[in-house]
Amino acid sequence: MNETAKPEPDPPSSREEGLAFSPKFGADGLATCVTIEAARGDVLMVAHMNEAALRKTLATGVVHYWSRSRSALWRKGDTSGQTQTLVELRVDCDQDAFLAFVKVGGDGGACHTGRRSCFYRRVEAEGEGARLAFIAPSILDD
Amino acid sequence: MNETAKPEPDPPSSREEGLAFSPKFGADGLATCVTIEAARGDVLMVAHMNEAALRKTLATGVVHYWSRSRSALWRKGDTSGQTQTLVELRVDCDQDAFLAFVKVGGDGGACHTGRRSCFYRRVEAEGEGARLAFIAPSILDD
Repeated sequence: MNETAKPEPDPPSSREEGLAFSPKFGADGLATCVTIEAARGDVLMVAHMNEAALRKTLATGVVHYWSRSRSALWRKGDTSGQTQTLVELRVDCDQDAFLAFVKVGGDGGACHTGRRSCFYRRVEAEGEGARLAFIAPSILDD
Repeated sequence: MNETAKPEPDPPSSREEGLAFSPKFGADGLATCVTIEAARGDVLMVAHMNEAALRKTLATGVVHYWSRSRSALWRKGDTSGQTQTLVELRVDCDQDAFLAFVKVGGDGGACHTGRRSCFYRRVEAEGEGARLAFIAPSILDD
């Protein structure tokens, strides 16, 4: 580890090297959470947590988010049955993003479209712009 | 797929079911990008892209971000050598988050602390609060 050779973006600090949990929320009070299916290791969804959602997640072992569209604390699975039981929560170097490794209840899915993962399309460059292509269903739905 | 049984949060739309790429940036002009080491499948970092960073990434095949701390377009690896060559870009259902599957140049790392991944600590509930614990280096640094 040689931080001096890697100037981007800050010198090391206790936030990065310490054991104190000091989550950093944005101006909107939110931090990003990337949710990963613990057994398969793939990304199911990206959502947001405010301080209350984070606290609830840690206290109950069931993942809670802040729904930006509904402006409400959201216990994932309450309506869909796709409850996310927390297996491990990780935090990044500057403590403003989380990885939640979860075990999913119900049909095992996470996306409101009915798919297992929200990331079911890839972006393909096309001229100056880009188009989407569906990823083979077998990758996501088996 | 049965959306009617899953009311959260919106009915299906062309944004979710179509092939048109219509990335949605937040009020700050940014969208979240989760960067994954393509060969190993694990998350290296979470960062942000504005429209210019996204366009540059697609046009060059090398991942660009928007650095919030420096308010600048940021071609990852320019100072560290840890260039991220894009293998595949995926977008989520409502097109406001990306997964970038990458091959990393230089020493293969992504974190400015010198570690391979930014997610090198887990959060452990402790009473009303939480503490961090380092993940065994062998998981991240081999």
